[in-house]
Amino acid sequence: MILRMSSLFVRTLRDDPNDAEVPSHRLLVRAGYIRRAAPGIYSWLPLGLRVLRNVEGIIREEMDAIGAQELSFPALLPREPYEASNRWTTYGNGIFRLQDRKGGDYLLGPTHEEMFTLAVKDMYSSYKDLPVWLYQIQTKYRDEARPRAGVLRGREFIMKDSYSFDTSDEGLDRSYAAHRAAYIKTFDRLGFDYAIVKATSGAMGGSKSEEFLAKAEVGEDTYVRCTHCDYAANVEAVAVRAPAPVAYDDAPAAHAEQTPDTPTIETLVDHLNEKFPREDRPWAAGDTLKNVLVVLKHPDGTREPLAIGVPGDREVDPKRLEGQLEPIEVESMDETELGKHEALVKGYIGPEVLGEASASRIRYVVDPRVSEGTRWVTGANVSGSHVLDLVVGRDFTPDGTIEAADVRDGDACPNCAEGTLESARGIEMGHIFQLGRWFAEALDLKVLDENGKLVTVTMGSYGIGVTRAVAAIAEGTHDELGLCWPREITPADVHVVAAGKDGEVFDTAARIVEQLSAQGLDVLYDDRTGKVSPGVKFKDAELIGVPTILTVGRGLADGVVEVRDRRTGERTDVPVADAVDHLVGAVRG
Amino acid sequence: MILRMSSLFVRTLRDDPNDAEVPSHRLLVRAGYIRRAAPGIYSWLPLGLRVLRNVEGIIREEMDAIGAQELSFPALLPREPYEASNRWTTYGNGIFRLQDRKGGDYLLGPTHEEMFTLAVKDMYSSYKDLPVWLYQIQTKYRDEARPRAGVLRGREFIMKDSYSFDTSDEGLDRSYAAHRAAYIKTFDRLGFDYAIVKATSGAMGGSKSEEFLAKAEVGEDTYVRCTHCDYAANVEAVAVRAPAPVAYDDAPAAHAEQTPDTPTIETLVDHLNEKFPREDRPWAAGDTLKNVLVVLKHPDGTREPLAIGVPGDREVDPKRLEGQLEPIEVESMDETELGKHEALVKGYIGPEVLGEASASRIRYVVDPRVSEGTRWVTGANVSGSHVLDLVVGRDFTPDGTIEAADVRDGDACPNCAEGTLESARGIEMGHIFQLGRWFAEALDLKVLDENGKLVTVTMGSYGIGVTRAVAAIAEGTHDELGLCWPREITPADVHVVAAGKDGEVFDTAARIVEQLSAQGLDVLYDDRTGKVSPGVKFKDAELIGVPTILTVGRGLADGVVEVRDRRTGERTDVPVADAVDHLVGAVRG
Repeated sequence: MILRMSSLFVRTLRDDPNDAEVPSHRLLVRAGYIRRAAPGIYSWLPLGLRVLRNVEGIIREEMDAIGAQELSFPALLPREPYEASNRWTTYGNGIFRLQDRKGGDYLLGPTHEEMFTLAVKDMYSSYKDLPVWLYQIQTKYRDEARPRAGVLRGREFIMKDSYSFDTSDEGLDRSYAAHRAAYIKTFDRLGFDYAIVKATSGAMGGSKSEEFLAKAEVGEDTYVRCTHCDYAANVEAVAVRAPAPVAYDDAPAAHAEQTPDTPTIETLVDHLNEKFPREDRPWAAGDTLKNVLVVLKHPDGTREPLAIGVPGDREVDPKRLEGQLEPIEVESMDETELGKHEALVKGYIGPEVLGEASASRIRYVVDPRVSEGTRWVTGANVSGSHVLDLVVGRDFTPDGTIEAADVRDGDACPNCAEGTLESARGIEMGHIFQLGRWFAEALDLKVLDENGKLVTVTMGSYGIGVTRAVAAIAEGTHDELGLCWPREITPADVHVVAAGKDGEVFDTAARIVEQLSAQGLDVLYDDRTGKVSPGVKFKDAELIGVPTILTVGRGLADGVVEVRDRRTGERTDVPVADAVDHLVGAVRG
Repeated sequence: MILRMSSLFVRTLRDDPNDAEVPSHRLLVRAGYIRRAAPGIYSWLPLGLRVLRNVEGIIREEMDAIGAQELSFPALLPREPYEASNRWTTYGNGIFRLQDRKGGDYLLGPTHEEMFTLAVKDMYSSYKDLPVWLYQIQTKYRDEARPRAGVLRGREFIMKDSYSFDTSDEGLDRSYAAHRAAYIKTFDRLGFDYAIVKATSGAMGGSKSEEFLAKAEVGEDTYVRCTHCDYAANVEAVAVRAPAPVAYDDAPAAHAEQTPDTPTIETLVDHLNEKFPREDRPWAAGDTLKNVLVVLKHPDGTREPLAIGVPGDREVDPKRLEGQLEPIEVESMDETELGKHEALVKGYIGPEVLGEASASRIRYVVDPRVSEGTRWVTGANVSGSHVLDLVVGRDFTPDGTIEAADVRDGDACPNCAEGTLESARGIEMGHIFQLGRWFAEALDLKVLDENGKLVTVTMGSYGIGVTRAVAAIAEGTHDELGLCWPREITPADVHVVAAGKDGEVFDTAARIVEQLSAQGLDVLYDDRTGKVSPGVKFKDAELIGVPTILTVGRGLADGVVEVRDRRTGERTDVPVADAVDHLVGAVRG
């Protein structure tokens, strides 16, 4: 395949588009890969479409390789299945809705759980039919509040979405593992620098959930990773390692002390160091136990108070808290509501009045660091008074633990003994998770098991952002000169530049181009004549980012052409006669 | 590639779906290729998607072969470009419209003239950039009033649409010819029995327009074709061959005669035969000239009378008339309006009072058969009176001709001397036409010509219904047993049936399947065990329609397997050892 710059539908731009914030967006527009049609909606020009198809092809190969079967659902979907799953309502204004000429309600599919579930229900009825793994590569729609960064977060975008269907949890584990392995192969081939990040599984709770994040400064997702091992997790999914139980046999008995005017951790610590100095080390915020009251708003509208105990040097991170409780929403408890609980003394709330068995009957959950045998200074439920040497498991027992305290750089790694956590940013490229039986129950997908009994099917969900992948690869591989594609997804294998005016340059270039094409290589040939200078052609080649650039120009007088590696910048003079072999070698490795 | 029936996501149905009217729809659903998601909206299951991708692949190859460049526009489109072309309004309720969360107006693209035009405007500025041929294979949406026949007329469907951009009419002719040739290759490869049918070009008028129709009883399009030559045309586009001028030197002078009570052609002919009998042959309706008055409704709302003269044995065909005048609409002239024209005597209107230069000033156009030198009996503009021997060119001269008379089986072919026309039905699979400068003018697409002057670009439009093609091929190739795919688009090359219970059958079948796959063939392998009988497997193979079926079964005792040609039904026993070579030969021809 030969693409000739003289006729290729592309125009490179010298200036950045006004609306482009991130390098991939700027470069994909400037190099003529994409054009904006509306906010978050893009046209794919020939070069861009070639890259997109290459990405799709890799994903398809790896999905086919594990035995997943491709099908294709519509993008325009009737309301009914989404009504059955309640997502017609819960999506809010995040989806595009429309009516047909008869007034029937439709949506543009943001994700197709319902359709996959119904398809399996339509076709299959027995455990013998399972497992089955189905996928599609399809255009999806979300009415994002803030579409941004070109095709990184668009409103019309392509996704590969697959679902696994099993009868047992063990089957789901196997299906999950197969998809995880396929994703690793896929992202390796796509040329990503990526992290596999533990994620929360939201409402489903407890089952496996991992995101594949492309490491990128411009990423919208923050995560933490270990400085030592390969642990990585969404902040929401970090599970603090609970300390081993501490013996408290020789711990002094708890004792309440007057601590006037210490409604904050800071004033309390100062007071402790002044009035109750310790010999071994001064009091610090981490010695205190802070009890935070919030209100849970359940989906059915009911409200419930919750008390959360965290070390005084930590904050409750609302994102982490909501990540644990989804779909429940969380509000802080205001003074009015606090006042209704007579047992609670603002600023001096202590474990004694918290917990389902206590006077307040408020459920009380604590950070895992507040573990058996640890000793704390905390509120005494009397204004201006705190309790010291309050021991967990001796003086009080919380109702449970919760991952709600904020995660910080330098925190111990939950996975290894050596490392600490550091935060990083990434772009979510893939998400695999165990969806479980939620949709199968909502849409009544059951099959007969070995004993002829109906059982609800359990599902896994596996997505890859395809258009987003193009931008993420561009983001991760570009340099200051332009795009810089990995070998497997480049729009062409070699970019041949005819740099000169005389016929010999063009004749030689054209001959090499034909020979490369005959060898099965895709060649982008800059055959432009007239006013297009070699300088302009070189700049375009750098911008467009084909990994290997061949220049046929001045060197011809000495019988050589120049091969340039776009990534390293390395230049090699090659005798004209060897050029084709050299290039085929460079491309095929 | 091996598809195993034991795990393939397919279930064949014994019964026809309730809503299926045409064979292709019934069979594609029963054989597990497609499933209905909503009226006119379908899901493509794995077998169906394979056929669809094959069709797309052929179209893409032939478009690439002529140098057309693929790109991809969004399906969700902003209102503005369609406002500029006025199609936001003129589409009426034939398109899906929606609003985003900010209240912005969008549509689901039914066709993308505006986007192609704007893309060229964005990228190109000089005649040197042209011609350029661009295409996409893309999902489109139309809110059809009556979606029907499965994917034959859907509301979400895939089209290949391309556009050519030239500066000159000659350039457009070349672009048109190249696309026409590519379409012929494409449809030949798709295995269609098709007709290339002249079509009207509507509002653009005069330029080339042809449809590629798949010949099919269930087709919605009627056309006529010659019994002798390859002429075919939409009824709207049939151009009647005007007779050569007839000498009228010795024709008698026109003479008005009393013809009381002859307001209809039938009564007139009876009267003529009674009172003015001819020696050579009796009077017939075709000897009379019938003048029909209509009212033209222009798009700007103005109304204009028009008189149409056709031989008395013909009717004015409203579809043909409107086809000539589009976008003007046509109404018949009612008595009230007729009464306003004093010169007109109802039932006896004659050419003398018609024409722009006449007393009525009503424009008068005639069927091409009403040609120079022909003699007619027609109204004398006096009640109960007709003129005989009225000669065209001697006694009156119409303002022009029009193709409005109905076309009938048996009419002379406009193209050859031998044939006559017969009507046929087809499915519109492709349409190529010279769009001209309409969109370029509406969206201001101009380029600099050789002299540095801005010229408006002229466009050609070339579409193929891709999903529709799958149905049309199924429609054209199925038989009473099921689907019957042409070689190039079949979902698999060979369907191998393991027909038996003993291990040897399955071992042999599996070995052959592996060998076929190793040779690069796609194999659908019916490896189902248990309760699935050979009879069920044979029926499924016939229904699914892979062109070559291999049965490994009883013959194994004699060392043979059976190769069956799905289309001809021909069966051949082949020694097991020769099976792979035989099948590869059958597939590769």
